[in-house]
Amino acid sequence: MTLEAIRYRSGSLQILNQLLLPHQTSYDEIRTVQDAYEAIKSMKVRGAPAIAIVGCLSLAVELRAGAGGDDPVTFIRESLCHLTSARPTAVNMGRAARELMEFAENESMEKNSEQLRESVIAWIEDMLERDVNDNKKIGNYGAQHILSGVPRDSVTILTHCNTGSLATAGYGTALGVVRSLHTLGRLKRVYCTETRPYNQGSRLTAYEAVAEGIPATLITDSMAALTMREMNITAVVVGADRVVANGDTANKVGTYQLAIAAKHHGIPFYVAAPSTSCDLSLESGRDIIIEVRPPEELTSINGIPIAAPGIEVWNPAFDVTPHQLITGGIITELGVFLPSELQAALTGRLTAL
Amino acid sequence: MTLEAIRYRSGSLQILNQLLLPHQTSYDEIRTVQDAYEAIKSMKVRGAPAIAIVGCLSLAVELRAGAGGDDPVTFIRESLCHLTSARPTAVNMGRAARELMEFAENESMEKNSEQLRESVIAWIEDMLERDVNDNKKIGNYGAQHILSGVPRDSVTILTHCNTGSLATAGYGTALGVVRSLHTLGRLKRVYCTETRPYNQGSRLTAYEAVAEGIPATLITDSMAALTMREMNITAVVVGADRVVANGDTANKVGTYQLAIAAKHHGIPFYVAAPSTSCDLSLESGRDIIIEVRPPEELTSINGIPIAAPGIEVWNPAFDVTPHQLITGGIITELGVFLPSELQAALTGRLTAL
Repeated sequence: MTLEAIRYRSGSLQILNQLLLPHQTSYDEIRTVQDAYEAIKSMKVRGAPAIAIVGCLSLAVELRAGAGGDDPVTFIRESLCHLTSARPTAVNMGRAARELMEFAENESMEKNSEQLRESVIAWIEDMLERDVNDNKKIGNYGAQHILSGVPRDSVTILTHCNTGSLATAGYGTALGVVRSLHTLGRLKRVYCTETRPYNQGSRLTAYEAVAEGIPATLITDSMAALTMREMNITAVVVGADRVVANGDTANKVGTYQLAIAAKHHGIPFYVAAPSTSCDLSLESGRDIIIEVRPPEELTSINGIPIAAPGIEVWNPAFDVTPHQLITGGIITELGVFLPSELQAALTGRLTAL
Repeated sequence: MTLEAIRYRSGSLQILNQLLLPHQTSYDEIRTVQDAYEAIKSMKVRGAPAIAIVGCLSLAVELRAGAGGDDPVTFIRESLCHLTSARPTAVNMGRAARELMEFAENESMEKNSEQLRESVIAWIEDMLERDVNDNKKIGNYGAQHILSGVPRDSVTILTHCNTGSLATAGYGTALGVVRSLHTLGRLKRVYCTETRPYNQGSRLTAYEAVAEGIPATLITDSMAALTMREMNITAVVVGADRVVANGDTANKVGTYQLAIAAKHHGIPFYVAAPSTSCDLSLESGRDIIIEVRPPEELTSINGIPIAAPGIEVWNPAFDVTPHQLITGGIITELGVFLPSELQAALTGRLTAL
């Protein structure tokens, strides 16, 4: 079984409501850009690549219905601006917005409104397809790189958060690497952290692993260092919300702590991300804006309080892992690079942000 | 307000049911050793010192009612053996059992059954009082040691799990140090991890902090490293379930990871524990038995499933922090010692296990 997180056909978009997983498999209809904005904000859909894809597809759905009338460029600009504001840390939506806007403006010089709508829709549909293909390349590059250190043996991976089919258009980034290792028959086991406070690991990664028969064990975030010491972990592989020029990486909170623990145990630490998650416009991780989310994510689960009333809470959704701790490399669809090699490898292949 | 986790008067014992906190403040009557065994096993009461005290007090209650008849020594031995088996990692119950048994056997040589019951009850009641006094000493020694490095400034502490009034007979160990700093007017803030999977931090430590007006902020376990980097943490202070001869320390799972992160940031890492939590009979942490608890603690909260059905789980309740990472010291009621000084400091002051 392969999970279908995004169901799209021309003029129609449905997303799997990830807030209801793993208990309920329910698809929500996304008819408008506003629907997509709300789904992203409330985390019905999450994961940097998936946010960008759902955002853009919602625009395609509105355009198919004729939105924008005689001035589709203004409609597209306002829609993309709104979508980008839903969650600030991930770079993919911002990049897609910039690229798509540039494309739409160029097209508008020579096409009428109807033709423009068609070519923008085609651009977005192509983006959906490209994401899955890029993820498969990430999976293969990552698996080969990890296996190159351990000939003829099977490997044990530790991962964080959810970076699979549910976080992308399909296949996944870090979990794509795990999928590739499993397909090659070389995966002994993957340990997944539950990933508090939103439990993307226990709800989503565990769901994907069970659904596809990938041998997986759930641990709490606090057990990661112990797991590294006791379970012969070959590599730690995580995703990214934004990788900047020097290789510093913003990802789900807890990633920094995992990287420190991996370093302590001499275990290679990898970041898996499409080049669209890379942002060469920022020099270092100090420049990344970190989203701070509501206290209720820590103090209740499914609306039921789990913490002492009145306690103050700090709930940053992401942290920044300095490039020095990314000892395995950054796995992209273009290959695996050391943080120090990333900028040169991507320059000229990425549009500026 | 001071929390009262254990209500004891001669012949009567009630414990605050910590499974119902923070939503409900409810005391359970403990009439028998079996009641105490079940309360310990199900974690209505937890924390190494509190487990030993509740276990022994339940025996005092039965003895007051005449349990053991003409052969109280056999009754005491069987009761202590049963109580010790409830949770294997903490050393305090085992030590109390050993000491109490030795005392009871000596007393039985010269006393009749009734007299023996009385003197054993007195021994247990004395243990209750000693625990609170020892905790206050731990709090003062720890606070002075931490403050000695930061003259005239207030400090920010990070702690894990619950080591307060709810984990001891009163006051607390690591949280006792926090209490002492607060009383001295030198505590800026304490960050407490929620401490998955049992949420002792968000349920219990947060509850104690709110109740006593201690400035506290709740974070997830995965945010600890980020908090160390961003929040100017002066010291990390945790409790212990067992400290062995070389200073290796078993404590709530996640402690090892915190110690690695503290080392990475150059922040002193302290263990606060009464000497009764020290076990010089074991040379290193490799010899400590680690309790593995049921998967359901990760996969559900209050009986409500939160993880994908069918996922495998690893749920070790504790981990061992190697002495090299305990850079601040081990805070006991006898003073603060480096791990390398512990054995010499305690030799002759502790009964053998």
